[in-house]
Amino acid sequence: MTEINAAFYRGNRTFAVETTEAHAPGPGEVAVRVAYCGICGTDMHVFHGNMDARVGLNRTVGHEMSGTVEAVGEGVEGFASGRRVVVRPLDHCGDCPACHAGHIHICHNLKFLGLDTDGAMQEVWTVPAHTLHALPDDIRMDHAALIEPVAVACHDVRLSALQQGEDVVVIGGGPIGILVAMVARDAGGRVVISEVNPHRLAIAVKLGFDTVNPAETDLTAAIDARTDGKGAEVVFEVSGTQPGVEAMTAVAATRARIVMVAIHAVRPQVDLFRFFWRELKLIGARVYEPEDYEKAIEIIVSGGIDADTIITDISPLSEIQAAFEALDSSPTAMKSLIRVSENA
Amino acid sequence: MTEINAAFYRGNRTFAVETTEAHAPGPGEVAVRVAYCGICGTDMHVFHGNMDARVGLNRTVGHEMSGTVEAVGEGVEGFASGRRVVVRPLDHCGDCPACHAGHIHICHNLKFLGLDTDGAMQEVWTVPAHTLHALPDDIRMDHAALIEPVAVACHDVRLSALQQGEDVVVIGGGPIGILVAMVARDAGGRVVISEVNPHRLAIAVKLGFDTVNPAETDLTAAIDARTDGKGAEVVFEVSGTQPGVEAMTAVAATRARIVMVAIHAVRPQVDLFRFFWRELKLIGARVYEPEDYEKAIEIIVSGGIDADTIITDISPLSEIQAAFEALDSSPTAMKSLIRVSENA
Repeated sequence: MTEINAAFYRGNRTFAVETTEAHAPGPGEVAVRVAYCGICGTDMHVFHGNMDARVGLNRTVGHEMSGTVEAVGEGVEGFASGRRVVVRPLDHCGDCPACHAGHIHICHNLKFLGLDTDGAMQEVWTVPAHTLHALPDDIRMDHAALIEPVAVACHDVRLSALQQGEDVVVIGGGPIGILVAMVARDAGGRVVISEVNPHRLAIAVKLGFDTVNPAETDLTAAIDARTDGKGAEVVFEVSGTQPGVEAMTAVAATRARIVMVAIHAVRPQVDLFRFFWRELKLIGARVYEPEDYEKAIEIIVSGGIDADTIITDISPLSEIQAAFEALDSSPTAMKSLIRVSENA
Repeated sequence: MTEINAAFYRGNRTFAVETTEAHAPGPGEVAVRVAYCGICGTDMHVFHGNMDARVGLNRTVGHEMSGTVEAVGEGVEGFASGRRVVVRPLDHCGDCPACHAGHIHICHNLKFLGLDTDGAMQEVWTVPAHTLHALPDDIRMDHAALIEPVAVACHDVRLSALQQGEDVVVIGGGPIGILVAMVARDAGGRVVISEVNPHRLAIAVKLGFDTVNPAETDLTAAIDARTDGKGAEVVFEVSGTQPGVEAMTAVAATRARIVMVAIHAVRPQVDLFRFFWRELKLIGARVYEPEDYEKAIEIIVSGGIDADTIITDISPLSEIQAAFEALDSSPTAMKSLIRVSENA
C-alpha cells in the first residue's frame, strides 16, 4: 500500500513524524484516511511519560478523529470508499464475563485503539469495521473530530437519566466537563458549572453557562439558593479531586444521581452517610456505547455543541510536537486538533 | 382513657416501667394495643446513651411492633377496633423538597416515631392513621413484630433491582444483614454472606446460607471462584466498616448494583476508580416506603423468613431492663422481642 506520514511517541515528551507503510486492511478491517485528530487528556498523559509501560516507545496515539474510507478488507459491507466516518476506538474480547453480560464497552480485556494499538495520528488508520460509524456527507470534518469526546459526554448524560428541567451541577469545567455541561443543557437540564480555574470559567461563561467558583463562593449554599434548598437532581463529578467528591454529595437532592466521570487514582473519602440519608445514587460511567456515538453525531450535526469555541487550535501533523507543547502550557486552550492528512 | 404500663428511657442505661395514661386518639389518630415490640439496634444506641440529645431522658422507645386497633379518632376510616396492624413509624412534613418530589420517607424534616416521638414500648400506642398497615387475621403476632425490619430489607432489595439467578454478596451478617440475605434469597438471588463473627456465621449457616469469613478467606477470590471471575451483580454493604467498603467494590461484577444499607458515621475511603472502570452503581437506601411494608407482610405470612430462628428471645415489658442488658452482652442473640401488652 501507500506510504504515509505517521507520528510516533518516542518517550521523553517527544513525537517523531516519519514516513511509514500504511497497513493494508485485512478481513473485516477498513483503512481510513484521517482528516482531523484531537489531542485527548489521555494523549497528554502519554506525552508526560505516565503511560510508557502501557504504550511503549514506538506508539502512534490518537483516537478523537474524523476521516474517510480509503479501502476495505474482505467481508466488509456498508462502507464504500469515500464514506465519511468516525471510529469508536474500542475492541472487546467477546469472551469475558463483561462481554457475556453485554457490557462490551467495559470488556475485562478491552483494547483501546490508539493506546493499546496504534491510533489516528497517521494519515491512514486501519481499524476493525465494527468500530466505524458513518457520518452525513455535509458534516464539517474538524467538528466531527469532537464526536468521540462528545460521545463520552452523551454516555455520562444518558446514564444519569436526566429529565427536562432538572437541576444539574457539573463539578470541573475542563474539556470533558464543558462537553458534559453542553450535552446536559441540550437534554433540557438547568446546568451550573463549578470550576476554580478563571480561564476555564471564562470559557464556560462565554458558552452561556451559570458558573460558581467554589474557591470564592460556598458551592452548596449557591446551589441551595438556586434550588430553594432542594439541591441538584443530577451531579457530574469530573474534577477527580477530594473537594469535588465532597461537593458531589453536598449539592445533591434526595435521590439525586451522581455520575462518576473522573478517574480517581487515589481513593478519596466519600460521605456514604449522605448516600444513605438522601438515598443518593452513584453511577460509574466509562467511555461509550454505539448509541452514544449516534447521539453525539446528531448533536454535532444539529449544532447543539458550540464546536468553534471548543476547538481552540488546529495544527498540521508535521507540527504535532509543538501542538502538544502548546496545549501543555496554555491556560486557555480547550481542544487542539491535528490536521492529519491534507487530502482527506 | 385507660391506665397503661409504659417503659421510659431515663438515661444511664436505664429503663423504668411505670403506669401512665394512654393518649386518647385525636382526629386522624388511632390507638393501638401493642402486642410485641422488637429491640432495634437504634434502641440499643439509645440504651448506650448515644442519642440522649435526640430522645431526651423521658422517652418511650420502640418501633418494631405488632398490635390491634383499640380506638380510632375522628375522621379515621378502615381501621375497626380489633384489627391487627403494624405501624410504619415515619411522619413526614409534606412541605419540603423531598416531600414535594414524592420521597416522603426521606423527608428533610422526618419524624421517626419511637425516637422523635414516644414509641411502642407502652401497652397502648397512639399514632397517625396514615402510618398503619392492616394485617391478615391469622398472622402470628410475634412474627409480625419482624415486619418493620423485614420492610427495611425489602426496601434494600427492591432498590437493588435484583433479578432471579443473580449473584449476591451481603457484607455483614447481623440482624439486618441476615434479613437482607433472606429477602434476597426469596427474590431468587444466589446469596453469599460475608461475616467475621463466628456466632453470626453459625446462624447464617443454620439458615442455609453460603458464608465466607473474610478474616480467614480472601473474599474477592472466593466470590471470583463461585462466579467464574464475574463477581456479584448485587452487593449489600451492611457492615459499616472500611474493610466492608473495600470489599463492596472488589466483589462487584461490571455494572453491579451496590446498596448502601449501613450507616457510616465516618467517611471511608472508596475505590471510585473501580466505580468508573466497571461502571458500578451505588444506591443509598434508607428505611422503607409503603410497598415495602406490604411486601414484608407478604413474606412474613408466606414463611419466606425463618422467624422462629431470627427471634431468639421474648420477655415481658416488666423485664425490659434485663432484656436490653442481655441483648447487649449476648454473642448469639439475633432479635429480642418485648411482649408489651398481655391482652393484645
